[in-house]
Amino acid sequence: MRKTDVRSVCETAIAAKMPTVAEHQSKQILQLYGITVPSGRLATSVDAALQIADDLGYPVVAKAVAAGLLHKTEQQAVHLNLNNPQALRNSWEEIQQRFSVQKMPLDGILIEKMVPGGAEFIVGLQNDPHFGPVIMLGTGGTLIHLFDDVAFRLLPVTDEDIKAMLADLRGRRLIDGFRGRAPLNEEALVQTVMAIAQLGVDAAGLYESMDFNPIMLTEQAAVAVDAKIILVQEPTEPKLEAGHSNVTHLDKFFKPQKVAVIGASTTPGKIGYVVADSLINHEFQGEVYPVTLGGKQVFGLKSYADLGEIPSQIDLVVVVVGLNQVPQLLDQCHTLGIPAMLIISGGGKELGGDQLVLERDIQRKARELGIRVIGPNCIGCFSASNRFDAFFQTHERMVRPRPGHIAFITQSGTYGCSFLEAFERIGMDKMISYGNRVDVDEADMIAYLAEDEATRVMAAYIEGMGDGRKFVNTAKAVIAQHQKPIVIYKSGRTQRSAKAAQSHTGAYGGSYGVYSGAFEQAGIVTVDSYEELEAVAKALVMQPPAQGPAMSMISNGAGPMVNAIDLFDRYRLEMADLRSATIDKMEAHFPAFYICHNPVDVTGSATSSDYLFAMECLLDDPGVDVIMNWFVFQDTPLDEAIVDALDQINRRSSKPILCGAVGGPYTRKMSQAIEDIGVPVFGSAHLWIAAAKALVNWGCIRHQT
Amino acid sequence: MRKTDVRSVCETAIAAKMPTVAEHQSKQILQLYGITVPSGRLATSVDAALQIADDLGYPVVAKAVAAGLLHKTEQQAVHLNLNNPQALRNSWEEIQQRFSVQKMPLDGILIEKMVPGGAEFIVGLQNDPHFGPVIMLGTGGTLIHLFDDVAFRLLPVTDEDIKAMLADLRGRRLIDGFRGRAPLNEEALVQTVMAIAQLGVDAAGLYESMDFNPIMLTEQAAVAVDAKIILVQEPTEPKLEAGHSNVTHLDKFFKPQKVAVIGASTTPGKIGYVVADSLINHEFQGEVYPVTLGGKQVFGLKSYADLGEIPSQIDLVVVVVGLNQVPQLLDQCHTLGIPAMLIISGGGKELGGDQLVLERDIQRKARELGIRVIGPNCIGCFSASNRFDAFFQTHERMVRPRPGHIAFITQSGTYGCSFLEAFERIGMDKMISYGNRVDVDEADMIAYLAEDEATRVMAAYIEGMGDGRKFVNTAKAVIAQHQKPIVIYKSGRTQRSAKAAQSHTGAYGGSYGVYSGAFEQAGIVTVDSYEELEAVAKALVMQPPAQGPAMSMISNGAGPMVNAIDLFDRYRLEMADLRSATIDKMEAHFPAFYICHNPVDVTGSATSSDYLFAMECLLDDPGVDVIMNWFVFQDTPLDEAIVDALDQINRRSSKPILCGAVGGPYTRKMSQAIEDIGVPVFGSAHLWIAAAKALVNWGCIRHQT
Repeated sequence: MRKTDVRSVCETAIAAKMPTVAEHQSKQILQLYGITVPSGRLATSVDAALQIADDLGYPVVAKAVAAGLLHKTEQQAVHLNLNNPQALRNSWEEIQQRFSVQKMPLDGILIEKMVPGGAEFIVGLQNDPHFGPVIMLGTGGTLIHLFDDVAFRLLPVTDEDIKAMLADLRGRRLIDGFRGRAPLNEEALVQTVMAIAQLGVDAAGLYESMDFNPIMLTEQAAVAVDAKIILVQEPTEPKLEAGHSNVTHLDKFFKPQKVAVIGASTTPGKIGYVVADSLINHEFQGEVYPVTLGGKQVFGLKSYADLGEIPSQIDLVVVVVGLNQVPQLLDQCHTLGIPAMLIISGGGKELGGDQLVLERDIQRKARELGIRVIGPNCIGCFSASNRFDAFFQTHERMVRPRPGHIAFITQSGTYGCSFLEAFERIGMDKMISYGNRVDVDEADMIAYLAEDEATRVMAAYIEGMGDGRKFVNTAKAVIAQHQKPIVIYKSGRTQRSAKAAQSHTGAYGGSYGVYSGAFEQAGIVTVDSYEELEAVAKALVMQPPAQGPAMSMISNGAGPMVNAIDLFDRYRLEMADLRSATIDKMEAHFPAFYICHNPVDVTGSATSSDYLFAMECLLDDPGVDVIMNWFVFQDTPLDEAIVDALDQINRRSSKPILCGAVGGPYTRKMSQAIEDIGVPVFGSAHLWIAAAKALVNWGCIRHQT
Repeated sequence: MRKTDVRSVCETAIAAKMPTVAEHQSKQILQLYGITVPSGRLATSVDAALQIADDLGYPVVAKAVAAGLLHKTEQQAVHLNLNNPQALRNSWEEIQQRFSVQKMPLDGILIEKMVPGGAEFIVGLQNDPHFGPVIMLGTGGTLIHLFDDVAFRLLPVTDEDIKAMLADLRGRRLIDGFRGRAPLNEEALVQTVMAIAQLGVDAAGLYESMDFNPIMLTEQAAVAVDAKIILVQEPTEPKLEAGHSNVTHLDKFFKPQKVAVIGASTTPGKIGYVVADSLINHEFQGEVYPVTLGGKQVFGLKSYADLGEIPSQIDLVVVVVGLNQVPQLLDQCHTLGIPAMLIISGGGKELGGDQLVLERDIQRKARELGIRVIGPNCIGCFSASNRFDAFFQTHERMVRPRPGHIAFITQSGTYGCSFLEAFERIGMDKMISYGNRVDVDEADMIAYLAEDEATRVMAAYIEGMGDGRKFVNTAKAVIAQHQKPIVIYKSGRTQRSAKAAQSHTGAYGGSYGVYSGAFEQAGIVTVDSYEELEAVAKALVMQPPAQGPAMSMISNGAGPMVNAIDLFDRYRLEMADLRSATIDKMEAHFPAFYICHNPVDVTGSATSSDYLFAMECLLDDPGVDVIMNWFVFQDTPLDEAIVDALDQINRRSSKPILCGAVGGPYTRKMSQAIEDIGVPVFGSAHLWIAAAKALVNWGCIRHQT
């Protein structure tokens, strides 16, 4: 067999309706890729087995080989550590009997030399529903599902990707000489993973998933002890190339001059009423053409009974009528040369059945006609440049942000509303709620925003992706080319693939692990909650990236610092080691009861000039990467000149400054004053630390790209 | 050897300056307690070893036995799976040689029958610095420190405690037939843990820690394969009895009639000024007697040069002068019959050196004289009953709460401030910032609050405990007797004991794992952040406990529900399975595009009466334990009658109702209106779920006690 034969071996098995490749064949395939496997041969009689064992030397392993055998361990088809001919005979008989009782035809028993113990890893391949071929590396053995210590990357991968996966594992520590043992052969593991990755590329489209578990890693070598290759039922096109983002006409959603509103209403409370109100009665700088059934005036504007009656060339159609009217509207747009449609209305695939079919029709038609569609089932877009918004949330209930430099793309309209309000003062450039995503997708949007000068930070809330590979490749290119951070909160994390039962790797298909690995591979900053998303977006837009993970802290109240330090491990941050000159300088300056090492405790007696002095000391210390101030504004000695002090430091600091404070109206007033001069303030130790972590992460990504 | 000999075996070893009990002796001790250990004997010659192996049957294990051998695995002193005499001979020589090279005298080699593989657990004992003797149960083997899957309880324990520990482990799943295997003998494991717990009680005061790792659990039995008993250097008093809480004079801190302020000041900005202002110029209903150096008037009140000059009988002395004056003040209080002192001033043990000594003197003197002291290094107390507060935070900067039913005890003054402000409208009964805790401790405070009618919920922020055992025993009694929930956020979690190197169990000494187990054992509700503490206290004071973990959800925006469901696993919550009648009723009532299974999505079109209808349906469904509403108040159709709807449901519901919403000024206004009628509203999916979890947890604790 040669590497080029791998596809034909798999194809033959698929054609023969085999669910798996037989173990001894899988091992041959691994050997082709230069992967070490235990010595061994397939035996079809007990005498042959005894002869093989004799050749190999005891102890040996006996493994049943049978077509369709999926769960070897659970089926007791693997007998380890057979020490002598009698033990092998016994195993042979047990296996024969078990398979005979179950009426499962046995192809033979694979006799292998028992591999000496080592650290157990798992390497897997998976044809992920959203991302195509992915590779998994994890702490392996039988406990894999107990601890879920696995990391994923999209294929193909580089050495660096594999090292990054390893760094993500808690099991990483096994390699470095765990609990006094000698370090293991990391390079052998990396080479084995690289070789399996190549197999994953070569055989793409032919496998559902593969498990190599355990890969036994010792000081000397990495040995693939067990192999399971689960085939697809029908070969599919290998999905290694990604689709390309398409930004055609996206400008029309953000800088439309003439907008038609299909379903504008004059009845207060109706969604068509509020959308018309948002566009007509507020800040939008373009022209609005209401289309209503009755043809009455809407907020003093002439209304049209039909899109075709509008005398101007429309840029964008906003739809608030039932989806069943959309196919015909698309035809009309095509006729009229209207390039873009924003569909607010819901009632599509989320209802299933006919509505799912209708939504697919809309998708097909939009693509055929080349009309760009955002939605359906969304709250629409906001753009700071011409104050476009078609929200069905009134200005009384939802404030719109000032112009700024954050763009937010969101699958949830609810979080769209929250984000707009949270960034009222800090400002936003654009917001896009894209709901069911029939056409314009996340990749298209980030490709568009990358070119948009006003957007400096992209934040996204995503529940699930259509074409994950397209998105990740687009993101990677955008980050490398434009040096703009992308931060994502992916929710809907607990969904597991239906293929969970077949293989260890398959159990993680579609799980957050795959998303997380793909995002990391692309250089995306990820967070674990919506609140972190807001906090990190704020930090990224207001402060520079950090040059390293060394935190310094100053506070007039120790509690939040204690909490923050508890989170260092989880966020992989470190406490900066201050130079003794820095400590001496503070000790000479401050009263004896201030604590002048890191974290610096300036006590309840601290004034703004105390903070200023401490910040200057930390700024000058080359061991400090980030300056973290926590303020107890309730404490009387802390005067309001703190705002000027921060402004002064912020103007000359290339290190990020992040503040924290929590309290009532006075604290909120002070926090706001500080954010107004460009320094972010967080309301919890957790968000303060999450923000710092993101700046460290972004600094590292920028450095690498 | 008999059980009664265990102490003398240990004492003899301690007297001989041995750091450990030899392995074969440890195994004998285990056998006394009815614990299964591998068959085996100590050999002092290779011939004896071969004979023993012959008697036992191969494969065998060889373990070096040497005084002071702590790290058997790291020292390669354990040779597993020796299959024949030659292998045993080789091991014998290797061990001999290694110990001879290291000049470590070898007492012999223990030859044991190799135990068949099974699920590996660890059981350990530890003399914890804060809690005394504790037992640990965890997923064991060599990977223990990779995954930290361990649970603790204070000794002595019950069967139920052990089952609760098991339930806390991810490794629990190994027992129930993991990945298709047969269930393991759980009862044997529980009995083994019980027996080790008894050993821990019997030998208390003589061991630092013990590791039994692994305990090999199979379908048949639990076998203690390895034993390590690390002795103390000097026997200590077994700390199995707890100290008793002392509530004497605590009333003086919360209902003082006449308060002296030592260090009251007339200089604005000084701490003594603000404390005097808080007491004199605001709501405090008692009399205030300033004591100042100059003897000038303070805010129009006569000031005294000395405490002894005050003509009235003082209840409470508030100290804002240097700690060096405190010893003499205590003497004076004793002379004057003043029973209580609140020391705001810092400058004690946190500075180390002389100040640490001074603080210890204060502690000793206070105890000798029977004067109760809160502080030093705190912000003091607040009491709603007579509006007592001695805060150095002005009313302009820190609002004081309305009267309510929550008491908060806090080691951090900073979080004291935050809590007071967060509960401005919901109200509080008492707040105690206790700083360095020289006298009144957490146990005294909860014992006092338990008897206080106005307090219904106790919340605590704790960084570290003095007498953990006293606290846990007091809490247990308080919860059982008064049925008042105690919720604690313990921070300072990453500190590890200096004994980390000696044993697996010892590595967790003083860690959060011990606190967490002790709290669970006492029936305390624990949370993982300060924000969760606020959220859970709010939920507990406003809503009844839940009868089970089945959540139902209603929202007009799906995003936060998706996030919340992601957290179900972590918080051990479940999605309620609605009866078909409930679903049918909603489907008949609502438009076709509403989603009427759980979680219920009433879409952006939802009105208050839609929510009311859905809540009524869920309230009537016996499968639902908690009703969770998320509101997108920004959406126009959601009218303000929602407040009345919630009021109506809340009045007749015995199921807890928890709401969530996040947004700008309008959302905050609506959230406040809902909280004013007694239903809590949370600003993130995470806090919404954490609150639900706490109500489930508290329901379960109440049911058990």
